[in-house]
Order: sequence, then structure tokens, then C-alpha cells
Amino acid sequence: MFVILVYDVEEKRVYKVHKICSKYLTWVQNSVFEGEITEAQLRILKDELKEIIDKTKDSVIIYKFRTKAYFEREDIGIKKPSSEDYFI
Amino acid sequence: MFVILVYDVEEKRVYKVHKICSKYLTWVQNSVFEGEITEAQLRILKDELKEIIDKTKDSVIIYKFRTKAYFEREDIGIKKPSSEDYFI
Repeated sequence: MFVILVYDVEEKRVYKVHKICSKYLTWVQNSVFEGEITEAQLRILKDELKEIIDKTKDSVIIYKFRTKAYFEREDIGIKKPSSEDYFI
Repeated sequence: MFVILVYDVEEKRVYKVHKICSKYLTWVQNSVFEGEITEAQLRILKDELKEIIDKTKDSVIIYKFRTKAYFEREDIGIKKPSSEDYFI
């Protein structure tokens, strides 16, 4: 399946959340990831996130699609950061 | 159609971008909006955003769907901010 994942977490957890998401998905914007993922991988990703985030303060939204064919993506402004931007 | 809009803009433009998006869509997370919108409204929304953002620094991604039926949304952690959180 294809997913779009957006997160809004407290500053101190941003790096960890970003790192977990990076293992399974492609980084497309500050706190947005997308990509093909299996049901099993998504379960693991969610479990890892649940261990890190504070459910009373942080928010993660996952939009799940059977296929990427169901949407069209339009970019305005700069495109897609590279992971190097983030971790140097 | 249904859209998910995510933005990453410089601090000083956040309020204006948020305000424009709020006119047409529902705020679901820090820099994420979603909602039903007509082609015409979306064109206006994009024009308004293009006037505000700096295309060399800011990023707006719009995912467009014919219908909401094509995806399933899953929330982890806190849900949906209310507009009051933002503007008081």
C-alpha cells in the first residue's frame, strides 16, 4: 500500500520520529513522509512510533491508500528536501 | 474533490498561509489541512498561496483525490487541533 505520514511532535522527539520514519518511507517535507509500505512494515513503524511519542502531546496522522494511482500530487515552491539537509 | 495540503514555510509567513488555507480547508495538524474543495476554489487557494510564499524557500504539497473514499486515515496520539488553539 501507499501511505502519507504527517507528524507534529515536541521538539525533543522530532529527531527520533524522523529517524524511525526514514527507515520505511521517503521524506518529502519538513514533517511529511510518503511511500510504498507493506502491512507488516506499517505495523512495525507504528509500534516504533508509539514507543517514542507522547500520546497526550504529539500527533501522527497516517493516510493509507491501496495504490498511488488514487491521487495526484502537486508541489508549489521548493521540492523535496534531501536527507543531508537534515542531519549534517 | 478532496485534498490534503501540507506546508513548510518560513516562520514569518506561517500565520498568513494558515489563514488562507483555513478559508477553504479544515485544519488537522500543525501544518496540515484537508477537505472537500472544488476545482475553482482550489485554483483560488493556490493563487493566494503563490502570492504569499517565497518559492525559493517555502514548500506546499497538495495531494488531490477524486473522492475521500480512496484512503483511510489513522490517527496516533492527540487529535485535531481546534482553531482556538492557534489564534488566541
